[in-house]
Amino acid sequence: MNYSVITITREFGSGGRTIAKKLADDLGFKYYDYELIQQVAKESGFAESFVEEFGEESQNTGFFAYLTNTWGTSVSDQLYLAERKVILELAEQGNCVIVGRCADYILEERTDTLNVFIYADMEFKKDRIITLYGEREESIEKRIIDKDKRRKAHYKYYTDRNWNRAANYHISLDSGKLGVEKCVEIIESIVK
Amino acid sequence: MNYSVITITREFGSGGRTIAKKLADDLGFKYYDYELIQQVAKESGFAESFVEEFGEESQNTGFFAYLTNTWGTSVSDQLYLAERKVILELAEQGNCVIVGRCADYILEERTDTLNVFIYADMEFKKDRIITLYGEREESIEKRIIDKDKRRKAHYKYYTDRNWNRAANYHISLDSGKLGVEKCVEIIESIVK
Repeated sequence: MNYSVITITREFGSGGRTIAKKLADDLGFKYYDYELIQQVAKESGFAESFVEEFGEESQNTGFFAYLTNTWGTSVSDQLYLAERKVILELAEQGNCVIVGRCADYILEERTDTLNVFIYADMEFKKDRIITLYGEREESIEKRIIDKDKRRKAHYKYYTDRNWNRAANYHISLDSGKLGVEKCVEIIESIVK
Repeated sequence: MNYSVITITREFGSGGRTIAKKLADDLGFKYYDYELIQQVAKESGFAESFVEEFGEESQNTGFFAYLTNTWGTSVSDQLYLAERKVILELAEQGNCVIVGRCADYILEERTDTLNVFIYADMEFKKDRIITLYGEREESIEKRIIDKDKRRKAHYKYYTDRNWNRAANYHISLDSGKLGVEKCVEIIESIVK
């Protein structure tokens, strides 16, 4: 099996983004992050900062449902549709790693896609965020829980699947138990 | 990290048992199947055939709930408690692979345990069962669905967790997509 697209769905603080970057570096794949945000912003007309902040967290509630465009499409749906279009286009170019944004679901029809889920225990995620981002410890657990809650709700809304269900992905890895380096090694052993 | 126990939770037809046997062979670990059934039979007083047939499928409904021993413990709970005791004892001896029977949950406290979940798409499972066991095709899908439904209900009853939730395990592998051989290779790369 030749894989030309890797999607990484990850819990906040699990090291999923680090794993994605390392994979792209090692495999010579494109790592789409800022470029994806730029293209979605261009596609949707929303500001880049808005796409960055809400691109994985919007769902049709409150502000996101209330505000619609001329055709009655909510802000949340406009954002999702723009992301979907850009992700399909980027995947078509091949050899890339895409983080989050329901990419596993959006690219479901492609047989050359490897869908990965990265998660970890709370202690690992807290330590990682404190060490990497220098955050204060007191509020960090709540932030992790809230962020993942929003990502899960977004995923559920647009895919009708639970994001922590193993069968959504081809491989799920506990980065807290296995270590970030080992996760990279395992994924590379599948793709190479 | 040194792992001395591997637990394999698997969907029916996914090749989980084959993976478990291969791992045990390659790593020089004990593979507990018939021996576990024998010991549970001895521990519980139930017939070996009964333990084999219902050890992963019982829950407190119908017959299993109605029939109790002198102390009011249901047949289902007696079976589970005997399995739990035997699994804890076997794990204590180390270097082993244990398939099914909520072993991931029962051994949760042990840090030297690697918990694996193996699953696959329906086509892969059907093909595998037809090829390996020579079953007739017409009823095989229903049999797969029914068997996993009973295993899931048993797992849920005794662990209060959904068995297809990635976070129950340290690694989850789609054997249909990755192939049985590759699954073995990945797990060995973690344990070795």
